Amino acid sequence: MKTIKLGLLGLGTVGGGTLRILQDNAEVLSQRTNARFEVTRIAVRDLNKPRAVDTGDIALTDDPRSVVDAADVNVVVELMGGTGLARELVLRAIENGKHVVTANKALLAEHGDEVFSAAARRGVQVAYEAAVAGGIPIIKALREGLSANRIDWVAGIINGTGNYILTEMKQPGADFDAVLRQAQALGYAEADPTFDVEGIDAAHKLTILAALAFGMPLRFDRVHTEGISRITADDMRFADMLGYEIKHLGIARRTDAGVSLRVHPTLIPKDVLLASVSGVMNAVMTHGDQVGPTLYYGPGAGAGPTASAVVADLVDVARGMTCGETVPALGFRETTDLPVLEMEQVECACYLRFLAKDAPGVLAQFSSALADEGISIEHMHQEPCEDGSGDALVVLITNVVPEAAMNRAIRRLEALEAIDGSVQRIRIETLN
Amino acid sequence: MKTIKLGLLGLGTVGGGTLRILQDNAEVLSQRTNARFEVTRIAVRDLNKPRAVDTGDIALTDDPRSVVDAADVNVVVELMGGTGLARELVLRAIENGKHVVTANKALLAEHGDEVFSAAARRGVQVAYEAAVAGGIPIIKALREGLSANRIDWVAGIINGTGNYILTEMKQPGADFDAVLRQAQALGYAEADPTFDVEGIDAAHKLTILAALAFGMPLRFDRVHTEGISRITADDMRFADMLGYEIKHLGIARRTDAGVSLRVHPTLIPKDVLLASVSGVMNAVMTHGDQVGPTLYYGPGAGAGPTASAVVADLVDVARGMTCGETVPALGFRETTDLPVLEMEQVECACYLRFLAKDAPGVLAQFSSALADEGISIEHMHQEPCEDGSGDALVVLITNVVPEAAMNRAIRRLEALEAIDGSVQRIRIETLN
Repeated sequence: MKTIKLGLLGLGTVGGGTLRILQDNAEVLSQRTNARFEVTRIAVRDLNKPRAVDTGDIALTDDPRSVVDAADVNVVVELMGGTGLARELVLRAIENGKHVVTANKALLAEHGDEVFSAAARRGVQVAYEAAVAGGIPIIKALREGLSANRIDWVAGIINGTGNYILTEMKQPGADFDAVLRQAQALGYAEADPTFDVEGIDAAHKLTILAALAFGMPLRFDRVHTEGISRITADDMRFADMLGYEIKHLGIARRTDAGVSLRVHPTLIPKDVLLASVSGVMNAVMTHGDQVGPTLYYGPGAGAGPTASAVVADLVDVARGMTCGETVPALGFRETTDLPVLEMEQVECACYLRFLAKDAPGVLAQFSSALADEGISIEHMHQEPCEDGSGDALVVLITNVVPEAAMNRAIRRLEALEAIDGSVQRIRIETLN
Repeated sequence: MKTIKLGLLGLGTVGGGTLRILQDNAEVLSQRTNARFEVTRIAVRDLNKPRAVDTGDIALTDDPRSVVDAADVNVVVELMGGTGLARELVLRAIENGKHVVTANKALLAEHGDEVFSAAARRGVQVAYEAAVAGGIPIIKALREGLSANRIDWVAGIINGTGNYILTEMKQPGADFDAVLRQAQALGYAEADPTFDVEGIDAAHKLTILAALAFGMPLRFDRVHTEGISRITADDMRFADMLGYEIKHLGIARRTDAGVSLRVHPTLIPKDVLLASVSGVMNAVMTHGDQVGPTLYYGPGAGAGPTASAVVADLVDVARGMTCGETVPALGFRETTDLPVLEMEQVECACYLRFLAKDAPGVLAQFSSALADEGISIEHMHQEPCEDGSGDALVVLITNVVPEAAMNRAIRRLEALEAIDGSVQRIRIETLN
């Protein structure tokens, strides 16, 4: 039985989880690989910090460069995060001829092309199952399981914090700020929640999913990103009434004109399975030209689930280490530089919500403002505003129109005397 | 670019779908593999049958042995089905040093140990992603994606016909026979539906899933199998009222005493994602000790989805053909002969439904019959029978008890004067 020597960069939640799986499930791992994993070195930031996991006689160091340079390390496991030092260390590990396993979505979304091409040149593997949707083997599904397909689209709930908040907001009257504070108290949201609730984390993951789905380069810079902080209790209630759930989706869709890459709150029909994914759970749905729709569901974060993906990568690397040819990092031997659509070119049906004054001809005014941009109203709901003003709360579902037309229509609506304040727009995806 | 020469056995729905993907998606397949797939030979039963797919100048033959013996075939793709001739041909292809891709669940469930060990001896691959849940890459997920885990259980909706029937039976008053006839008219059920509705097809697939999950031999002979034909409109209604869906599940669960392998109608809580899987779709849920619950959803049958899995296997074989070490067929290098529980040893909560005479002391009679076997009633619902007899329709949810105790309790109940006819028992799984 061969021994595979591992150097860990980072011993936080995921690092500790990885070490624990390698210890607890050593037998099942040997049965799967005919190999034994031995952690020889671990780089940590603070040598004196107490650890929840037993590091035995593994050499701990606060010099991560010594780990990526060590002769007794075959595979570097990068679990420190960030795009500065992590990038330097990963590239240096590759240069040293070591395989790399990483959970670092930001690094790959922003510098993946550089990392993967360095690895291909040097003939080593960079595995990253843990970088998207934690414990769900979605990288493997897209890269290998669906390899017969031309992928049409990918849509995912890929941030557990955001999905937890939206799930809790379904409670009558629960508003975003209150639910966010509750999520922070429970440890589901960070003190600074921007990264999660504004969609940046989801955009990193979507960048990787799109590259895998379409064989295109990693284009984080081209992802249109909107957060969920502007969603209100009214929106949750109206969406429910109209047969939808509001989910914060990452969407990558191939059209004849190009690829759209976007993260935004989205109405999806309740009878689509993705609509039933609640709480901190993640799920990725995709549509292949041959297989049709498939969905992958599971925990998207946490020590156990993320480390499960890290260790699955180690098993893959172990299986491939005696092998000349491996699966290319993004599933394709070469990427195709597909055009990425401007958000203005993307076509969606929309949910619109606004306050209208109770005056004659108001309906005619806003329906003609929409019609002028080629937008028709598929469904309308109107109810008296509870503030006693006599104003009406209006909710519309439109047909599918280009974002540019919708933007112009919203500006027209907001300019109307009869409409108070701004227009809430949430895009609809039917996912079929 | 290397060329990989394929010999197809069978050109029915899946064979035709496979040929079409190889033609239509040739470019994406080359981008993924650096190889070109060429179908050189196809064995069919009837050379004169008209074909929906263009076979061009591929050599068609009605002698399948000539395909598995041909020098210009590197990979044999077995899509003919059955366990007689198919077994002989697959073993002969392996003996001839050819890789095999198959969609044949019956062959693997019943003769997989023989097939896989022949392949391991000869150093060739047998790939079978299409054998379970059609287009869903569940084999890869269990074998590779979750390889860090000790799998606790697998539970799947793995027969689309049965799930379609149960979904349609949710319409008020729809009964099994009427829905089955409708499914037959739509082509979702065969003229002889036994294989699907009695759970034999699901048992074949469950056998394979259990071997993958636990690294155990293929024990089709030990799967307890019950069909859905005894489920009534009343059961659907009561399940709904109590917060459950009835699904026909294949369940493999590891306990300290052994593994339980069973296919039977099952009540699952509505808030478990599996409960939302409707129509002909399939889904497999699994629980790993590290990752927790994950779920895989998609179309379980049909030309496109099944061929999607066949071609993904071809891509894997192509990637591995220059490689010394490959993933073992069942994910483990060696299987462990885990004890399989007798059904009497399996522990479940149960839903019981029966007719009780409207007489004093009836409740005491049946609750003490249950208590005598250590069974408690967690929930009870009673309503007058619509036939005007004065009898009551009684529905109970019990605590978790061994099947043997429940069997004895049901015999006690059926022996009571106060109970009319037989007791309907449906097992409950909370899937957590």
